Amino acid sequence: MTLQRVLPFTKSLLEEAVSEGDTVVDATAGNGHDTLFLAGLTGPGGKVIAFDIQEEAIEATRLRVEGHPQVKLVHGSHAEMVRHVDGPVAAVVFNLGYLPKGDHAIITKSDSTLTAIEQSIGLLKENGLVLIVIYSGHEGGGEERDAVMEYVRELPQAFFDVMKYEFINQRHSPPFLVAIEKKPKRNKQRTEG
Amino acid sequence: MTLQRVLPFTKSLLEEAVSEGDTVVDATAGNGHDTLFLAGLTGPGGKVIAFDIQEEAIEATRLRVEGHPQVKLVHGSHAEMVRHVDGPVAAVVFNLGYLPKGDHAIITKSDSTLTAIEQSIGLLKENGLVLIVIYSGHEGGGEERDAVMEYVRELPQAFFDVMKYEFINQRHSPPFLVAIEKKPKRNKQRTEG
Repeated sequence: MTLQRVLPFTKSLLEEAVSEGDTVVDATAGNGHDTLFLAGLTGPGGKVIAFDIQEEAIEATRLRVEGHPQVKLVHGSHAEMVRHVDGPVAAVVFNLGYLPKGDHAIITKSDSTLTAIEQSIGLLKENGLVLIVIYSGHEGGGEERDAVMEYVRELPQAFFDVMKYEFINQRHSPPFLVAIEKKPKRNKQRTEG
Repeated sequence: MTLQRVLPFTKSLLEEAVSEGDTVVDATAGNGHDTLFLAGLTGPGGKVIAFDIQEEAIEATRLRVEGHPQVKLVHGSHAEMVRHVDGPVAAVVFNLGYLPKGDHAIITKSDSTLTAIEQSIGLLKENGLVLIVIYSGHEGGGEERDAVMEYVRELPQAFFDVMKYEFINQRHSPPFLVAIEKKPKRNKQRTEG
């Protein structure tokens, strides 16, 4: 396969954005796969803060990241991210929807998702990324997708690039990726002459 | 910058898809930049067939690819691609719109573009790519974009993956990429047991 699927492409972007020693956030720990991947990228000198509102997810993640003291787990909402994360951060990753193998009635919701995305972009360092993998096939997923898309399309292009990576000939609403990059500040001071 | 712009990302995909000795097509030679890039990827043992309906573009490309005998220039429509190309091909690239620095009234048109895309996917080898960079800011561009998008969304997912890569918070209709990959044939013969 020449074209990368959405999840491997998301990982490739994280590899680009995150270096050893960085601080990063897993906004939806889920079963901890991304948390562990991020811990590998930051190394023991970095910091990974992982959020989930479900006890089950926090426990699964705790088991998976044993031996990686750079990971801090927060059993709570990513909408309170700024209380737990000391920025700037190199990357924040969201996997919206429900916990795989968990209760499919417990889903991320537009309001808290938008609050968390807003906080994430405030925490980003220059050239840092917020990566949002959007699943919209489940009930309530379409509404959340529309709310997120409306929000990210309006992000000012002077400060952010917003990219969408999507397979468009598939049935059954496959996941797609939205990536937000914080642009470096322009140098306001110019040398005369 | 962490996220690749549309044109560098398109080149990265060509680097993935094209190996030395391959046959590839530049469906819109323009000023010959992509043709030269492709000639570098196929090497002298490969073949690059480049099309343009404008004499001016063919001459500009001829100058740029001097010393690369693997390039064959066709002053004619890419809608007649199958008459000039002996497949299978590793990649076909389209830059839709008008010739940069040329007459902006001469543009690619929906009918011939769709014919050429249809022929391209027929020529593809397994895991080969058709890459279409779509500019829709110019007059007539919106119509062509809509026709192409309608066509590619309907390509059967059993045989093709269709991906869209787009920056979505920019004004002034920036170019975006559509990539079509031909899937490998499934092995129909299964071993019993």
